[in-house]
Amino acid sequence: MEQRAARVLVFVLAILASLAANSTAAAQSAWLPSWNEGPARQAIVKFVHATTDPTSAQFVPPAQRIATFDQDGTLWVEHPIYSQVVYCLDRVPSVVKQKPELANVEPFKTVLSSDRGAAATLATDDLLKIITVTLTGMSVDQFQAEVRSWLASATDSRWKRPHTELTYLPMQELLQYLRANGYKTYIVTGGGQDFVRVYSDQVYGIPPEQVVGTAGGTKYGYDKNGKPMLTKDPKLLLNDDQAGKPEGIHLMIGRRPYAAFGNSDGDRQMLEYTKAGDGLRLAMLVLHDDAMREYAYGPAQGLPDTKVGAFTQGLYDEAQKNGWIVISMKRDWRQIFSFTR
Amino acid sequence: MEQRAARVLVFVLAILASLAANSTAAAQSAWLPSWNEGPARQAIVKFVHATTDPTSAQFVPPAQRIATFDQDGTLWVEHPIYSQVVYCLDRVPSVVKQKPELANVEPFKTVLSSDRGAAATLATDDLLKIITVTLTGMSVDQFQAEVRSWLASATDSRWKRPHTELTYLPMQELLQYLRANGYKTYIVTGGGQDFVRVYSDQVYGIPPEQVVGTAGGTKYGYDKNGKPMLTKDPKLLLNDDQAGKPEGIHLMIGRRPYAAFGNSDGDRQMLEYTKAGDGLRLAMLVLHDDAMREYAYGPAQGLPDTKVGAFTQGLYDEAQKNGWIVISMKRDWRQIFSFTR
Repeated sequence: MEQRAARVLVFVLAILASLAANSTAAAQSAWLPSWNEGPARQAIVKFVHATTDPTSAQFVPPAQRIATFDQDGTLWVEHPIYSQVVYCLDRVPSVVKQKPELANVEPFKTVLSSDRGAAATLATDDLLKIITVTLTGMSVDQFQAEVRSWLASATDSRWKRPHTELTYLPMQELLQYLRANGYKTYIVTGGGQDFVRVYSDQVYGIPPEQVVGTAGGTKYGYDKNGKPMLTKDPKLLLNDDQAGKPEGIHLMIGRRPYAAFGNSDGDRQMLEYTKAGDGLRLAMLVLHDDAMREYAYGPAQGLPDTKVGAFTQGLYDEAQKNGWIVISMKRDWRQIFSFTR
Repeated sequence: MEQRAARVLVFVLAILASLAANSTAAAQSAWLPSWNEGPARQAIVKFVHATTDPTSAQFVPPAQRIATFDQDGTLWVEHPIYSQVVYCLDRVPSVVKQKPELANVEPFKTVLSSDRGAAATLATDDLLKIITVTLTGMSVDQFQAEVRSWLASATDSRWKRPHTELTYLPMQELLQYLRANGYKTYIVTGGGQDFVRVYSDQVYGIPPEQVVGTAGGTKYGYDKNGKPMLTKDPKLLLNDDQAGKPEGIHLMIGRRPYAAFGNSDGDRQMLEYTKAGDGLRLAMLVLHDDAMREYAYGPAQGLPDTKVGAFTQGLYDEAQKNGWIVISMKRDWRQIFSFTR
């Protein structure tokens, strides 16, 4: 670049910097519009200011700004059953069509003959059999196509909307706010890494390489035309739940997060690990206490018990003791979804 | 932002875009200065133009611009033995100090009593024993501190310089050129993921989350003060060599690269997988044919055979057949290191 052009560029950058500074104060209050004013929103804004202001003692260099989010129950609805389990159950008829010998074998027989509600009560072993045949054995490309096709047609039982619309608006705003402040946002989910990666960019603005999830292996090989392909293998490499979350973060990211968000006992270790780092760290848990607008389950704070995404009193007590912030959906969120008030 | 400010911003962005367009032609010839003009350099520049020009039929959206680099022999020197193996051998005295019972047990006895050259001839089983005790069993933090300390003091046997200086200047320029054109650069190495992550940012400008390597598991637990910690486990999760490279790319990145760079038969599957994608893809292999300035080994093209980073005639033939570009260090690189001509 010529000297004169360089000088123009410096001038232009100075204008931009001044515009950015002038708009900062106004912009801060424009963020997180679906959050009610209160301790949860305040904790987020305070954390972002303290870690991004270069004059702050708690400043974090941009490259180290990592924020991790659980998915089910934290970014989108997980009740009455996880969306990925619905996917697996919905896939059973297609799988049996390809492997007719499964039609009279349990648990496939039950799934074929009953409604989704009955299928949801399957024992863990039976569910694992269904998960194995619907999530492994096919090529990575084939699996992605199957998930895309399902996402385009399946709807949630309560709101009659695509699962991808059942994401919490306040958490979407939080993702955007963190990214606007230089944070790299990751999903760290007990759900299938390959499953979530299909829609993470479209739904959350999170690219596939920033999704850490429960992951099986793949086998490299060649199709009948000699073209390289990867086949999904039943071998489990990472069970990304509980202790598996910090282990998965180390494996896939290699840095400790500065902020972590969850909603259940499966997120406890991720939050502990995050808070154990030096400097200011933020740990938050979404409490589902809004049966009217979404669902209410705990069993913390006397909320109904659940097998899906339990938030126990023990976790609640640990949060109180360690300065983790509990987000009350009822109190802290002005609006839950983009399609409802 | 106010309307007037927004209009100023649009104007300013237009100036910036015009400056960028005017400086493109001049800037292209300023890139890759350590590359001689020839088919290798031409292939790189042509690939970058075709995939980043929005009017090109082979344009690749920025989010999909992934480039993967093998490390040993591709980004830095791997002869006479891999730097990480030198690290493991150098660590043996410290390990034996902590576990004196190993002093009279093979292979530790041999390593303690002989020079590095003799130790380098150890059988694979013996080497694995050394790798296991020097790379696992400690906390992640402790391991990182040990590697940092070693990097600060260890020097290469031939150039008497820190290993981190033995990186190829032309490949450093290639990394920078790709990143300046929106490519996200990854290391995909048979070496240890945790090992390479310690210095990848400093040496290559590649952050830890963009290093894919051979990876063991970790175990989440608590130290004696109850502080969360991760301990390096001997269990192998990913053997990131040969077929393990595309498998590792899928696990850790979840997208197929548009460009891949290697130097040995261990990179064959990564290059095949890269080239099997749609659109224009670039696959390149560094051939070590410069005994004067670095090392000469193949055995392709009649070069001496080697156990470290072999580039066989079969790989050379596959490259010729499939349009992979072979980089001759002797012919294509004007300068090898930043500290030599």
